[in-house]
Amino acid sequence: MRIHHECIACAINQCQKIVEMGLFEEYSRRDAMLFSLRRASELFSKDSIPAVAGGLLFLDLYKAIGNDDPFQKYKRLSNEIARELVGHFRDSDLGTALKLAIAGNVVDFSVGYDPQKLEDDIKQVVSESLAIDHSNELFDRLKCAKTLLYLVDNCGEIYFDRLFIEKLRENFPNLRIIVAGKEEPIINDATVDDLVEAGFGEVAEVVSTGSRLPGAPLDHVSETFLEIFRSADVIIAKGQANFETLSETGDPRIFFLLKAKCPPIAREIGVPIGSLLCFNPLLR
Amino acid sequence: MRIHHECIACAINQCQKIVEMGLFEEYSRRDAMLFSLRRASELFSKDSIPAVAGGLLFLDLYKAIGNDDPFQKYKRLSNEIARELVGHFRDSDLGTALKLAIAGNVVDFSVGYDPQKLEDDIKQVVSESLAIDHSNELFDRLKCAKTLLYLVDNCGEIYFDRLFIEKLRENFPNLRIIVAGKEEPIINDATVDDLVEAGFGEVAEVVSTGSRLPGAPLDHVSETFLEIFRSADVIIAKGQANFETLSETGDPRIFFLLKAKCPPIAREIGVPIGSLLCFNPLLR
Repeated sequence: MRIHHECIACAINQCQKIVEMGLFEEYSRRDAMLFSLRRASELFSKDSIPAVAGGLLFLDLYKAIGNDDPFQKYKRLSNEIARELVGHFRDSDLGTALKLAIAGNVVDFSVGYDPQKLEDDIKQVVSESLAIDHSNELFDRLKCAKTLLYLVDNCGEIYFDRLFIEKLRENFPNLRIIVAGKEEPIINDATVDDLVEAGFGEVAEVVSTGSRLPGAPLDHVSETFLEIFRSADVIIAKGQANFETLSETGDPRIFFLLKAKCPPIAREIGVPIGSLLCFNPLLR
Repeated sequence: MRIHHECIACAINQCQKIVEMGLFEEYSRRDAMLFSLRRASELFSKDSIPAVAGGLLFLDLYKAIGNDDPFQKYKRLSNEIARELVGHFRDSDLGTALKLAIAGNVVDFSVGYDPQKLEDDIKQVVSESLAIDHSNELFDRLKCAKTLLYLVDNCGEIYFDRLFIEKLRENFPNLRIIVAGKEEPIINDATVDDLVEAGFGEVAEVVSTGSRLPGAPLDHVSETFLEIFRSADVIIAKGQANFETLSETGDPRIFFLLKAKCPPIAREIGVPIGSLLCFNPLLR
């Protein structure tokens, strides 16, 4: 997916968030925002993939502000709260676990205001129906598949991905499941280290995309990851950045699991904003 | 006032608003946002005055999208609703009329969802106390002043400025009152034409700043306006852009009337965000 008009302001707004998390003096925040503006104007063109141009921008900004992981606290908090919450959903069936994995992509765990409220929010998401639902096709494919590659998105959310993967293992005991995280921190994305800490090693093989960029931009990932990607029978791609970086591949193996949170994604897919989706573009 | 770190994203977000009001095809909106990004990176530096750099950016964007007044409908609606509403406040005294002029700067008339709700919002603002209140000093100065220059801000709001000016005339019958609007449209600022249409000609002399930029940037206004500015005994400057462009003059004649709507303005003045203000910096 290439940028839509809203992606520009969104990237700059995210830079402001990074700057506010990573710097504390007003003059250095101001200089960092001026840097972001100049760098964004160099990085964004009409052919940009938002997650790639944005990712490159954020990494340059990390360097400029001398902070390699400004989301660290935010991610730790998200992980703690999601780890706690997911325990309440252990008895879910496979279909519900899939929806819970999408719900994990929706809820902002870091707010942590009230665990009961978060639990209610998740139940609310699970009670909604999917705007596009190819989950039956996904499960049919997994019956015959040898290898599933599962591309995670954010911290917090990964605890719900883990639950879904446990249910996948129960239902498809012979399936080899490989879970890919980012090589190093970028915004609130889950890294390989986050996956290991969340115990993914016990339920799947954990690999790195070999890149620090959000999503799985195939011209930026490692050769090792590319081989894993090429040899998988089915690919589950969570969240917006994985959609942005893989939507143009036309790859029939990919099922996207996400909520269309922003107008560009909703417009690109052709669904109302806020739609919950489990879809394979080639099955539409 | 020079830019704070939030001014960058705010300017880009305003560009998005302009683009969405002025263009309807996604590809042209995208191109216009890319243009905005490049132009902003050229225009903004640490010494920029937000209203000036922003104003120049918006005017260039107007040219790029071939729309000289994208806020036209928005402004017309604001004016219609405010004209209707101000009638309910005719019996106010001078102090209340001053607060109403600030309230006019707070309320977004264009929403127009429910006139009763808007009226309640205005009454709510008027019931609040000012965080800094130099209105007594302002009225004292006006007793001895020959000429008041009144710098307006936005459409809609101007109907409440007009009411305040009527009350000023009642209380200071010998005061010469000159009201300045913008030369031509820029965002939702009131132009000379808006002032004439709102009947300011009946209660004051109407002049142009000679510039299309928001606020009253003294290095961009006309020589005629500059003479009027220099010869005024007291100046009332409404809204954030007038504050941004005049705060560094150290001019003891200026009283700023505004709500500190955004973090940079609140931080610059040293008041909580949302504060209602009638202040002369030299009296603090």
